Amino acid sequence: PVRVAILGASGYTGAELMRLLLRHPGVQITTLTGERQAGRPVAEVFPHLASFGLPDLVKMEQVDWANVDFVFCALPHGTTQDVIAALPKTIKVCDLSADFRLANVETYAKWYGHAHKAPDLQREAVYGLSELNRTGVQNARLVANPGCYPTSAQLPLIPLLLAGQVEAQEIIIDAKSGVSGAGRDAKQANLFGEVAEGIHPYGIASHRHAPEIEQGLSLAAGEPLLVAFTPHLMPMSRGILATTYVRLKGGATAADLRATLAETYAKEPFVKVLPEGIAPQTRHVRGSNLCLMNVFADRLPGRAIIVSAIDNLVKGASGQAIQNMNIMLGFDETAGLEVVPVYP
Amino acid sequence: PVRVAILGASGYTGAELMRLLLRHPGVQITTLTGERQAGRPVAEVFPHLASFGLPDLVKMEQVDWANVDFVFCALPHGTTQDVIAALPKTIKVCDLSADFRLANVETYAKWYGHAHKAPDLQREAVYGLSELNRTGVQNARLVANPGCYPTSAQLPLIPLLLAGQVEAQEIIIDAKSGVSGAGRDAKQANLFGEVAEGIHPYGIASHRHAPEIEQGLSLAAGEPLLVAFTPHLMPMSRGILATTYVRLKGGATAADLRATLAETYAKEPFVKVLPEGIAPQTRHVRGSNLCLMNVFADRLPGRAIIVSAIDNLVKGASGQAIQNMNIMLGFDETAGLEVVPVYP
Amino acid sequence: PVRVAILGASGYTGAELMRLLLRHPGVQITTLTGERQAGRPVAEVFPHLASFGLPDLVKMEQVDWANVDFVFCALPHGTTQDVIAALPKTIKVCDLSADFRLANVETYAKWYGHAHKAPDLQREAVYGLSELNRTGVQNARLVANPGCYPTSAQLPLIPLLLAGQVEAQEIIIDAKSGVSGAGRDAKQANLFGEVAEGIHPYGIASHRHAPEIEQGLSLAAGEPLLVAFTPHLMPMSRGILATTYVRLKGGATAADLRATLAETYAKEPFVKVLPEGIAPQTRHVRGSNLCLMNVFADRLPGRAIIVSAIDNLVKGASGQAIQNMNIMLGFDETAGLEVVPVYP
Amino acid sequence: PVRVAILGASGYTGAELMRLLLRHPGVQITTLTGERQAGRPVAEVFPHLASFGLPDLVKMEQVDWANVDFVFCALPHGTTQDVIAALPKTIKVCDLSADFRLANVETYAKWYGHAHKAPDLQREAVYGLSELNRTGVQNARLVANPGCYPTSAQLPLIPLLLAGQVEAQEIIIDAKSGVSGAGRDAKQANLFGEVAEGIHPYGIASHRHAPEIEQGLSLAAGEPLLVAFTPHLMPMSRGILATTYVRLKGGATAADLRATLAETYAKEPFVKVLPEGIAPQTRHVRGSNLCLMNVFADRLPGRAIIVSAIDNLVKGASGQAIQNMNIMLGFDETAGLEVVPVYP
Repeated sequence: PVRVAILGASGYTGAELMRLLLRHPGVQITTLTGERQAGRPVAEVFPHLASFGLPDLVKMEQVDWANVDFVFCALPHGTTQDVIAALPKTIKVCDLSADFRLANVETYAKWYGHAHKAPDLQREAVYGLSELNRTGVQNARLVANPGCYPTSAQLPLIPLLLAGQVEAQEIIIDAKSGVSGAGRDAKQANLFGEVAEGIHPYGIASHRHAPEIEQGLSLAAGEPLLVAFTPHLMPMSRGILATTYVRLKGGATAADLRATLAETYAKEPFVKVLPEGIAPQTRHVRGSNLCLMNVFADRLPGRAIIVSAIDNLVKGASGQAIQNMNIMLGFDETAGLEVVPVYP
Repeated sequence: PVRVAILGASGYTGAELMRLLLRHPGVQITTLTGERQAGRPVAEVFPHLASFGLPDLVKMEQVDWANVDFVFCALPHGTTQDVIAALPKTIKVCDLSADFRLANVETYAKWYGHAHKAPDLQREAVYGLSELNRTGVQNARLVANPGCYPTSAQLPLIPLLLAGQVEAQEIIIDAKSGVSGAGRDAKQANLFGEVAEGIHPYGIASHRHAPEIEQGLSLAAGEPLLVAFTPHLMPMSRGILATTYVRLKGGATAADLRATLAETYAKEPFVKVLPEGIAPQTRHVRGSNLCLMNVFADRLPGRAIIVSAIDNLVKGASGQAIQNMNIMLGFDETAGLEVVPVYP
Repeated sequence: PVRVAILGASGYTGAELMRLLLRHPGVQITTLTGERQAGRPVAEVFPHLASFGLPDLVKMEQVDWANVDFVFCALPHGTTQDVIAALPKTIKVCDLSADFRLANVETYAKWYGHAHKAPDLQREAVYGLSELNRTGVQNARLVANPGCYPTSAQLPLIPLLLAGQVEAQEIIIDAKSGVSGAGRDAKQANLFGEVAEGIHPYGIASHRHAPEIEQGLSLAAGEPLLVAFTPHLMPMSRGILATTYVRLKGGATAADLRATLAETYAKEPFVKVLPEGIAPQTRHVRGSNLCLMNVFADRLPGRAIIVSAIDNLVKGASGQAIQNMNIMLGFDETAGLEVVPVYP
Repeated sequence: PVRVAILGASGYTGAELMRLLLRHPGVQITTLTGERQAGRPVAEVFPHLASFGLPDLVKMEQVDWANVDFVFCALPHGTTQDVIAALPKTIKVCDLSADFRLANVETYAKWYGHAHKAPDLQREAVYGLSELNRTGVQNARLVANPGCYPTSAQLPLIPLLLAGQVEAQEIIIDAKSGVSGAGRDAKQANLFGEVAEGIHPYGIASHRHAPEIEQGLSLAAGEPLLVAFTPHLMPMSRGILATTYVRLKGGATAADLRATLAETYAKEPFVKVLPEGIAPQTRHVRGSNLCLMNVFADRLPGRAIIVSAIDNLVKGASGQAIQNMNIMLGFDETAGLEVVPVYP
């Protein structure tokens, strides 16, 4: 089996990688790192994984890279660039951080507040929106796994922009996320008492996922564009719902948009266009790698409303990362990801 | 004290009227009706109100109207028109249903599927968006209390349309609501297991609150308009957050919009424009009659994002109804409504 | 593959059977019944299962039993006895209702308010607490799948009673359950607004799972016994936690109890005794067939506290049912149940 | 008005004191301290209190004690003893920490890991279980406000022990708490993702509220006793439910216990014994100073089950603290506490 290391295994995306990889027929998790948690067994860090025979967490410096074939990097952004630059070049990598998602290192510097530390690697990195960049991922050594919000927004919008059916300069994305997207670090803002029974927007017009979305949509539109992007934090552990408002272009109707998406994703195992009139719900993808989407006519003439739903920890992070690994290594693309949603 | 009857007291808005009126210095709750619950004490229907000396529920036909000075009508729409038409004309009424909100009875017929049963009363009814129609409410015998979504959307948008600062024909309202807005009737869709840990839109482009919003905004804009309005159901008991996307008009900036709202509501006890950059959260109004709002510049040039938050059961229903009663009867407008939000 | 029918597929246990059986290597779901939902596709009844190629729901009378090898019966109690009595005797059955759990039909009549309709079948039925009755299940045609609370309580208590380490006549079980245990029928008491942000006990000293627990514990103790059993309803969709208070017997200590359980379940794939001092949490078994347990010394001398956690829909219902099917049909006992818990 | 200072105002109990005192007719909040938050306006620390004209937070050293008549001390335990010892002796104090709850300073030292720093003050301090120690509180300068769990457990148990109706040496308290009881400090264990959708016990046989409960019950029983006490953390923001299992004594029945409690609390505005057979729910006291209780016969002969419910932040902390202030200062005992529960 392929020997897999998860760097930064003590966060939620790390746990989710373990959950899914434990049932992957072709890999074995041989290495887990966690700088602060080094020396602790998984049973202490993630008790729900206690009974699955996983290795203890170690420090990065303790890893024998000769025993690693593939690396998932789930470290905080910023540190990731140095870490990946130091890995043996024979190891393939899927990076779940934001460190290699922005092709333009100046855009990165502007949004992340420091110069990119590995511009050469950035040139090599392939953006891993699996369904829409399969060939790129296939040939990549380093894949930048897309962000959760960007995945939910780009999967429906890129095909529509490519088809010239929506106006590029006026896309409005209203997104709602569960709390696990904020990570597992102790922060007052993410305490149960601060999050339960309420909702609020955050990072209005300033969230770091905006330039990532704009990068992908600009490419599809063939022109630079900005988006309105408003993320909201709401009381659920998992899930992202993106409600996207678009102006129709070239006489297209909501039904045309739906048809474009249905055709684009007709054979995809993970992306599903729902029957006409049925709205996606995040709870219907919970725990799975699915993305549900649909298109609705708007009351405003000449406009449409697109709704897409993913599990932010699966299709929005660890699931898509494994999907990318499967593509990179030639596994069946659904290996380890044949997880049925958990409901209720 | 003013003797108050609550018709349809067994739902959430009925309970909320009781909670607030119990601490109103000028009224006494003398009558509670509930057709299916008639004969039962409040302690059985709403155990949290057991110890406050409220009367038992009775059938409408048992009410002695000579002992009633003011009626809150919290009945399902449709039945309300007949009930209010049959009341003695000496009794003032605040109706929490949708039955008298649409001034145009043909619009009503179209959206509610049957002819309006009391068009004369409809002509008499005054739309009770308290802060923006105080004089009308003052002189009314019958007030149509606004819907929850329309309250959250119109309070920020009407002053901006009046000021000519936002384009009228392109308003996009993305709203998120707690579950109590769906009422207390047993419906599978509102079970804990169906609502927890997820979010979904519903009634896309077809929700009955759309024409109510459009009626108010059209008046303010001086031209007929439609809105994009997408409500979402999310796992919290109380609260509505409206995230509204507008195109700026006549050179106005987001700061200008904020200034207009700040000036409009400067002396209002219940409507608060937050400091620049601070986003409203529904949990900060929970249990109170407050409406929090703010305006943000959009990444899309020439556009702004407005965020408003209310408790759907208070400012979005029972609280605003009491505010209207206070105005109609000459009480201090804040009587019974000096409730501090409950957090966490 | 074994052709499986799920009778009463429109409830939560039905959905959970589908979720797990879809990944079972040896079975195929060929029949789903639902009297009220007959004619509807699974996609409408359970949208999260839309993309997995399941058959539409049919009425029971439409089923061709010649095409069915194994039946899971997830019908309401009461109707189940007639239904199973009418099935061809060649079909093996695992019944998830309470209809065949009480060996004594008079006890059944007392607690369920009507005479047992199939006493012959009752004599044949085998109680399917998998780990503790494996041989019985292996030879059974009809297995009565244990209730959720009884599973959580009996798995730790039966070995301790067999070992003579706890007093039989003074067992106190304080249990906390998620809402899915109450089913998917529309009931006001299970609305989100009625369940969120609170907890309460119900059925104190009168819950129908009490005699089921007492039946199993009496057998293990070798003497008839009663238990204190207080179930609580709390705001989570899945999970049961049982906190059990026992008096130690024959000089046993909490450590002795822990050792007995550790030995009993040493080789079990699904039942895990946690390290000393670590308390089970329901969220660590969510979505899985695991039962976690542990024993703690009490401050009261001569007493101990036992804590056990299961997912009520998996080990407490559909998972254990599949485990029983695996035993009955000679599959690997973990087939279809190798599901890692979903956290968070 | 009485000038009130809240020391340690940035936690949940501080916020709750503000919420309630803002509507108290006889006091004015003049001073709020918060060492880490000093200099910040309340609007930043607790946005839900932004519009109520509260003073900014200051450091303790900045307080002019000449302008303070009454102090609520909501500081972490340990630091409290020094702080209160340094206050002018003319100021009356209600302390919400655990620092003065244990009359025996050796017991304190054993459970809190350091010698008591103000044994003289400890001798002076009065335990403020309001209903059961009214005279003591009336004459106190320093009141130790009871813990949340101890309040929920002692209110029903003390009268029953005084009446000799329950065995003293075998009391088992199974308690379930909302998350706000764990405070507002950033801790991983209290993140939304770690608490939602699950329940677990903690501090089994080792929670610091056990000796506090035992102190009160021992006094009532007239003999030293220990209790079994198992707290559980569950996904709600507010509320404690205590399910208590007792052995009956001297021929008493569950009905006798209920009668004793009904008589004890017949005239109390905040403590209510529910009608026979009705179980208390925490959601029916949310936001209020109520304690609901009831007694049920057990299936185990000679035993009974007592259920009590409070809001941990109100009757379990800030509400009872204000009740104690009212008693100490001669206000109407319900002043500021006439808050109707918020439901749903």
